[in-house]
Amino acid sequence: MPEKIKLTIAYDGSAYVGWQLQPNGVSIQQCVEQALLQLSGEQIRIHSSGRTDSGVHARGMVCHFISERVLPLTAWREGLNRFLPQDIAVRAAEKVADDFHARYSATGKHYRYTLLRDSVRSPLERRTSWRIKAPLDLEVMRLACTALTGVHDFTAFRSSACSSLVTQKEVYTISLTEADALIFVDVHGSGFLRHMVRMMVGTLVEIGRGRRSVENLELMLAEPAYALAAITAPPQGLCLMSVDYGTRSPV
Amino acid sequence: MPEKIKLTIAYDGSAYVGWQLQPNGVSIQQCVEQALLQLSGEQIRIHSSGRTDSGVHARGMVCHFISERVLPLTAWREGLNRFLPQDIAVRAAEKVADDFHARYSATGKHYRYTLLRDSVRSPLERRTSWRIKAPLDLEVMRLACTALTGVHDFTAFRSSACSSLVTQKEVYTISLTEADALIFVDVHGSGFLRHMVRMMVGTLVEIGRGRRSVENLELMLAEPAYALAAITAPPQGLCLMSVDYGTRSPV
Repeated sequence: MPEKIKLTIAYDGSAYVGWQLQPNGVSIQQCVEQALLQLSGEQIRIHSSGRTDSGVHARGMVCHFISERVLPLTAWREGLNRFLPQDIAVRAAEKVADDFHARYSATGKHYRYTLLRDSVRSPLERRTSWRIKAPLDLEVMRLACTALTGVHDFTAFRSSACSSLVTQKEVYTISLTEADALIFVDVHGSGFLRHMVRMMVGTLVEIGRGRRSVENLELMLAEPAYALAAITAPPQGLCLMSVDYGTRSPV
Repeated sequence: MPEKIKLTIAYDGSAYVGWQLQPNGVSIQQCVEQALLQLSGEQIRIHSSGRTDSGVHARGMVCHFISERVLPLTAWREGLNRFLPQDIAVRAAEKVADDFHARYSATGKHYRYTLLRDSVRSPLERRTSWRIKAPLDLEVMRLACTALTGVHDFTAFRSSACSSLVTQKEVYTISLTEADALIFVDVHGSGFLRHMVRMMVGTLVEIGRGRRSVENLELMLAEPAYALAAITAPPQGLCLMSVDYGTRSPV
């Protein structure tokens, strides 16, 4: 009797072309499928909650697969970790119902973007943050977060390569938290368009530097065709923290 | 008129054989001297506050050098950073008096060791922490920190390769701070023997796991010859945070 297994995966994305299989380099998906082949002897295709771009990290990427082999859950976790490189780890393995789908069952996602306020580069933060030299007005950035929260057409916050047919998304919460020189931008929403979090953060930083107003951000949401394009924050500051499967979304 | 310059340097030590020049690989000292040569055209020997082992990091390593060329301090900092790799950065450049010596003028050092309490490996912390799977009793570890504080003969806490003639050192303070799954062990002292911080942390972890008693630690300090040898915590958890030059120590 084949089993459906859900994996929660963490990775340092620095060395990869991103989550998804690519002809031009090594992807995280490829490493996980390779480890599954080594562990189980099966050619298994995994299905993820979504993609992450090259250089983006994860603490809680979710994927599922179906295996003909029945193994204890700790064997999936520990066995895969034996075959995975040090910058990828299975954090949890769970058996799930037949109707679970890592992508279609997801009801929300939490991303964290890390900014570093520093006039000089900082080697220990270089792979996990975007350094901002200019002063940032956090108060006006928090006003901008309030404007971004809720249901909006996020057309102005997607990559030109984004192929999603639905551009309306709901942002549940956005918060800014300071920790010494770091600022964490935590974004929790129903789902995200391609580059959406990075373009939201790029816009927040422009606003914090006084280069764009909150009114202009409101125009981006209301009249995307007439607004100045958002800049895209670099990938290494972004981390997929978790995917929600709280309430099953309608198929 | 030659000038004496003090540099404060940060690095991710993962890719290096340590601070000091070595025949078997690339050292941080070598990279800094190479950048000085590229910037100033001079073969300059730098003198550091001390060494760090392979894999150990720094946020505030200090070194000094004498240059025939007189450059503005921002040119030293920005110019060197242009030639240094991304995992090494000059955080500050200052002009210092002729009698300043990075090593002999130092009056104290602050090291931070990072522990990660986690049953599964965590890719984003792998280069900067020591993962402990077993439960740790922080209360007894804090008692052990109190026992380590003060002036002691730290012979039991030095590598067999340590050549220091003086084994008496003063530990000013040791503190344990929890931040989610991380525990920071902050050690501030007059100076340290080779591997001393890592052996102190190794011992603290043994005590926290119930494998060694605080009484045994007291024996290590009082009668090093009769005590069970300390284990050495791995290098990647260690970071040299800062070097003090507050009160000039007697030469």
